[in-house]
Amino acid sequence: VKKQLFDREKHVYKCDEFLELVLNAIRFFNGTPVHGLPLVDKFNGTGIYAIYYTGKIKPYEKYGVLNRSEYNHPIYVGKAVPKGWRKSRISDNTQKQGTELCSRLRQHTCNIKACGFDLKDFAVRFVIFENDSSDMISAVEAALIKLKLPLWNVVIDGFGNHTPGKGRFEQAKSDWDVIHPGRDWANKCNGQHNEASAILDRIKYYFSKTKAIEGN
Amino acid sequence: VKKQLFDREKHVYKCDEFLELVLNAIRFFNGTPVHGLPLVDKFNGTGIYAIYYTGKIKPYEKYGVLNRSEYNHPIYVGKAVPKGWRKSRISDNTQKQGTELCSRLRQHTCNIKACGFDLKDFAVRFVIFENDSSDMISAVEAALIKLKLPLWNVVIDGFGNHTPGKGRFEQAKSDWDVIHPGRDWANKCNGQHNEASAILDRIKYYFSKTKAIEGN
Repeated sequence: VKKQLFDREKHVYKCDEFLELVLNAIRFFNGTPVHGLPLVDKFNGTGIYAIYYTGKIKPYEKYGVLNRSEYNHPIYVGKAVPKGWRKSRISDNTQKQGTELCSRLRQHTCNIKACGFDLKDFAVRFVIFENDSSDMISAVEAALIKLKLPLWNVVIDGFGNHTPGKGRFEQAKSDWDVIHPGRDWANKCNGQHNEASAILDRIKYYFSKTKAIEGN
Repeated sequence: VKKQLFDREKHVYKCDEFLELVLNAIRFFNGTPVHGLPLVDKFNGTGIYAIYYTGKIKPYEKYGVLNRSEYNHPIYVGKAVPKGWRKSRISDNTQKQGTELCSRLRQHTCNIKACGFDLKDFAVRFVIFENDSSDMISAVEAALIKLKLPLWNVVIDGFGNHTPGKGRFEQAKSDWDVIHPGRDWANKCNGQHNEASAILDRIKYYFSKTKAIEGN
């Protein structure tokens, strides 16, 4: 490579339309039908989902109030991307429609149930992104999280965790598992986890900053 | 939630313009200046980079031929996203410009050098995505990988790995580390790794499917 002077400006890309497209997708998302758990129907596809809490159980009773008139304050936002999306592995490049989104929601339903919640206190919204649009999934998910600051995304880690891989049980139980015992594999994690009281304090602090979440 | 009939179509989002924007970004990417390694100048920002191999060392000599007239066949494509992007953690929400991209390229440079390569045989291209545009990073990276199928992304795992976290040395050495010994921490991974001969066969197979990579 011939040496050339470095000019940062030549490397900067700006694209204002991108945010517009992401916001369009979020508006569509917020207009889709809400379903109770468990989902009865099976469906194909990948995409984004939001889980809403509408019950009265502490420390989440505030969500019940916030979501009284509309489903607007998810406790968790997640995504299910096409298999092999990150890596585009040749072997995974079949573009076959899987059931990732539906399976992910079923997993979450199992976890919620296993940890003693009442499924009636939850609802979900989800959007399927097909073909080329599936490349939007990560950007839309990230924007939705930034906009809504769902508690189980931004304050409490671990709800979306999977069973740790072989030999990974040296790690600590996640914050979510500390305050919601019930997942078998979580109890096998041997690392030094955070104290429940400290985690609950963070939740209290989060709800005290109401503007941060009510403004949305 | 009132029970309602499930209608999949109500949940499907389509957005053709999205792919257009991603392709615009890729075109910009392919027009940016190429630099040799190591990078001399420090710079702020997050974004996407491609690493090109132009040397004659086996099993990568084909890249030297493919990149003879232009830098068009990266051996690796990666990204450096803003800290806290995935989680939008409140505490990380400072939107401060870090040096993620520059640091990532320096790390790669160290790894390449540590494993006995000649830095002269490598070149990089990178684009900085600022502010709202930084939400595009993952989508553009994924599209670039799909388009170019870089060997160290789609065939050989591990080049981009970091030192495993505490207690994670039970995992296997990555394929990349098996055929490119030199990273200290890789030797501490105790799991059952793949055989070098099998990995090299996969590389041979990849280059034999020349259309897959030359067509780009």
